[in-house]
Amino acid sequence: MSHSPRISQAVIRRLPRYYRYLSALQQMGIGRISSGDLSKRMGVAASQVRQDFSHFGTMGLQGYGYEVPLLLQEIRTILGLTEAKQVIIIGAGSLGQALAKYPNFERDGFQIVAIFDANPTLSGQTVGQYSIRSINELQDFITNHHVDIAALTVPTVFAREVCNNLVSFGVKGIWNFASVELDVPDDVALENIYLIDSLITLGYHLDIKKLNAEKQRQKEAKKHNPQK
Amino acid sequence: MSHSPRISQAVIRRLPRYYRYLSALQQMGIGRISSGDLSKRMGVAASQVRQDFSHFGTMGLQGYGYEVPLLLQEIRTILGLTEAKQVIIIGAGSLGQALAKYPNFERDGFQIVAIFDANPTLSGQTVGQYSIRSINELQDFITNHHVDIAALTVPTVFAREVCNNLVSFGVKGIWNFASVELDVPDDVALENIYLIDSLITLGYHLDIKKLNAEKQRQKEAKKHNPQK
Repeated sequence: MSHSPRISQAVIRRLPRYYRYLSALQQMGIGRISSGDLSKRMGVAASQVRQDFSHFGTMGLQGYGYEVPLLLQEIRTILGLTEAKQVIIIGAGSLGQALAKYPNFERDGFQIVAIFDANPTLSGQTVGQYSIRSINELQDFITNHHVDIAALTVPTVFAREVCNNLVSFGVKGIWNFASVELDVPDDVALENIYLIDSLITLGYHLDIKKLNAEKQRQKEAKKHNPQK
Repeated sequence: MSHSPRISQAVIRRLPRYYRYLSALQQMGIGRISSGDLSKRMGVAASQVRQDFSHFGTMGLQGYGYEVPLLLQEIRTILGLTEAKQVIIIGAGSLGQALAKYPNFERDGFQIVAIFDANPTLSGQTVGQYSIRSINELQDFITNHHVDIAALTVPTVFAREVCNNLVSFGVKGIWNFASVELDVPDDVALENIYLIDSLITLGYHLDIKKLNAEKQRQKEAKKHNPQK
């Protein structure tokens, strides 16, 4: 692990986005970019970009900008992407299977090493390149293999129990997709993907925007027909 | 649409979580809850809970707490969950298929009505209860059906183009799963699920926690063997 010291949480939160964006530039064959361009394309203030990047040693040159490969390397190092991490998936339903087949994790150093399910009829079936294992093998597997992260795609009602088991077996990273808040000890990292929260928030904003558009239409109509 | 006026964005952001949490309580047959209990279980300050809930008319009673069904009804109304929304999925890869099969969207009023893919060999194949349609039918479908939201699970390189098409066909809600920033007009609502950002953030925190645990171990070891 080769983390630079003292980078604020706010900067850390922005890094994956910079990383994703700069990776896309590199794939397009773009070798350098100015903070101004980056700022415009990403919707972040140019001063913010410069300040963020100043935290990790890479300085842009006036009138030249930043070297994309250098910047990417810095961000990869800070984010720990230079060292591979092993991921297991718990729950071989359609979401677990989708994660197992997701093409982009490997590129960033996240290797899926096994997928488990409690349903005995699934055991031995294959998902992509993986043979689904019984949840009963979970403890043995974690004891005998290096596991960094467990992705949790089990039904909501089982999520707490499975999470507690994973933690007691020594897993220190939980990637939770179940619609439930999980409690983990201080030495365990947890990230949640709450699909339904995101969809509900989207629906809310959609309604508000429609409502505002409708009000605007009525206002315009009034302006053109003031006597009505 | 029956949105209460003037609820701050910060409160709105918390509502899906309250909603999810209270739904779970209701499913467990719990009919009322105090702000203190809710606060402890959700890790939000009790004063925050009371202040949030005061925005939408439901008052808890001292020593009694809140009626869960009433509270849920209020939140459902504010979030617009009382009116069904129709969702199409663009991209019938494993992630699109997982969304099509996801059991919990319907309960909250989000109805998947169609799934599209650009790959002609997929056209006509079924995913759950849906027959995959050709992307060429997209405009016709949107013109002839009510579509509120499009979930975008196409490969990253196609996401911008497909998003622009959806907007030009009149879709006002985009739920983006591609690892790319999308530009949409002001009257279009957009929510992103960036899986890789979440996984990278998790990996980073995992590393930091391991590093801290290691430092702590070394400190302890020194304390017990001060001469070394």
